[in-house]
Amino acid sequence: MNDKLHIDPEVAQLVLTQFLVNEITKAGFSKAVLGLSGGIDSALSCYLAVKALGAENVLALRLPYKSSSAESLEHAGLVIEDLNIASETVEITGIVDSLAAATPDMTPHRLGNVMARARMTVIYDRSMSWNGLVIGTSNKTELLLGYGTIFGDLASAVNPIGDLYKTQVRQLARAMGVPAPIIDKAPTADLIPGQTDEDDLGFSYTEVDKLLYLLVDERFSPADLVAEGFSREMVERVLQLIRRAQYKRELPIIPKISSRTVGHDFRYLRDWGT
Amino acid sequence: MNDKLHIDPEVAQLVLTQFLVNEITKAGFSKAVLGLSGGIDSALSCYLAVKALGAENVLALRLPYKSSSAESLEHAGLVIEDLNIASETVEITGIVDSLAAATPDMTPHRLGNVMARARMTVIYDRSMSWNGLVIGTSNKTELLLGYGTIFGDLASAVNPIGDLYKTQVRQLARAMGVPAPIIDKAPTADLIPGQTDEDDLGFSYTEVDKLLYLLVDERFSPADLVAEGFSREMVERVLQLIRRAQYKRELPIIPKISSRTVGHDFRYLRDWGT
Repeated sequence: MNDKLHIDPEVAQLVLTQFLVNEITKAGFSKAVLGLSGGIDSALSCYLAVKALGAENVLALRLPYKSSSAESLEHAGLVIEDLNIASETVEITGIVDSLAAATPDMTPHRLGNVMARARMTVIYDRSMSWNGLVIGTSNKTELLLGYGTIFGDLASAVNPIGDLYKTQVRQLARAMGVPAPIIDKAPTADLIPGQTDEDDLGFSYTEVDKLLYLLVDERFSPADLVAEGFSREMVERVLQLIRRAQYKRELPIIPKISSRTVGHDFRYLRDWGT
Repeated sequence: MNDKLHIDPEVAQLVLTQFLVNEITKAGFSKAVLGLSGGIDSALSCYLAVKALGAENVLALRLPYKSSSAESLEHAGLVIEDLNIASETVEITGIVDSLAAATPDMTPHRLGNVMARARMTVIYDRSMSWNGLVIGTSNKTELLLGYGTIFGDLASAVNPIGDLYKTQVRQLARAMGVPAPIIDKAPTADLIPGQTDEDDLGFSYTEVDKLLYLLVDERFSPADLVAEGFSREMVERVLQLIRRAQYKRELPIIPKISSRTVGHDFRYLRDWGT
């Protein structure tokens, strides 16, 4: 099964950078901006953006909250230094804490969403002064399981790594020279000290990627997956996560009452050519 | 031409409320939350939500910035009072000004986007404690012309008025009893005192809705529109606005490299039934 998740890094790099060039040029831009969390996903997206557009056209933003780990900031710094790109560090603490102060019943989960949306707001603001498109940093595993904040870290113009499972992100990151400390550490949303993605999800990325690949790409049924050796409990849990996250992969739903409706049958590119 | 924009308010109300009931129920919810700006679009969305779900299931948020007009707050208050719904007022000034303080080159346009995204962040935060879906408030005219902030006021789960042109919003708002001062005032984004939408856009909603209807719903060509009496300049300008706003009507673009890709051919509802 591992073999099927294996990608050819040369081919993947070529396809993904060509995609970035095409989409960004087509939109009338030559530059890009993204948030660097210090994690592997945003690091890989950054390496791809630099490969596609050139170091001088990429702006990296570091957006720490007061509880963010110093290591996250340092790891983002490794990427900025290695790629020699423009960067800015904007603390989101004031933004987040202003809202938290007006929210007596705030929970850690809600605070994490507020942080993700505060970061999106800063990134989109800087995209205007930098005159660049916002590059997404969500991998396929996260998109399928809904491990991300809608209109927060899931928001972008173009997302080069959205069709790569986490294990494939690791493979490509290694091939493209992402600094080893970023590849080797345990993935974390860095919202609570010590928290890891795999604790949150209840399984390892290696394990769930194998299941997701068979389910989504190979269209295995739940029964097939159990026959393949996955526990019924894990299969059920993954199906539930995918179902519950469907709204994060959709545009706002509009009821159709006219002859051409946004999100239904009004699609500029198809209707009017590029 | 006016006749073609005419809707039957009874039918429209029935279709739009039934849509809200269906979508919200299907998603496993019974409640809804939305931001009330004091304008006609969010007022109409609120009347529709209350008609669909009952007054006890709708939470209205008033989200003023320090420069927002007192009238906006009052007009939102008229809706809350008339419908007798739960409400909360959360100042976004602290959130917005924290970011503005870290932005030496801030412009009014960028500040407007920050305000829209700060409001989205509060609305989505409150949707968790209220356990409701976020109702959108963007009409078809705005969606086509791109007069709105992506991941800000354009963000929602379900948008009942997205297939109604502004002139149709006025018609339905009158029929559903939206308070007259809200219907009669000049539409404004309320970002700069005295600013109106129609000044920003450079034409009246009545005028542009006629053009949009013929262009989008009746598929008139630009030449047809000029023959119909619209100035070439206005036709070109509207086409340009629609083209430039295409990205606001799309999900983040993902390059396809696997056999099933989010946003391409992985669509849960079609693949696995509801």
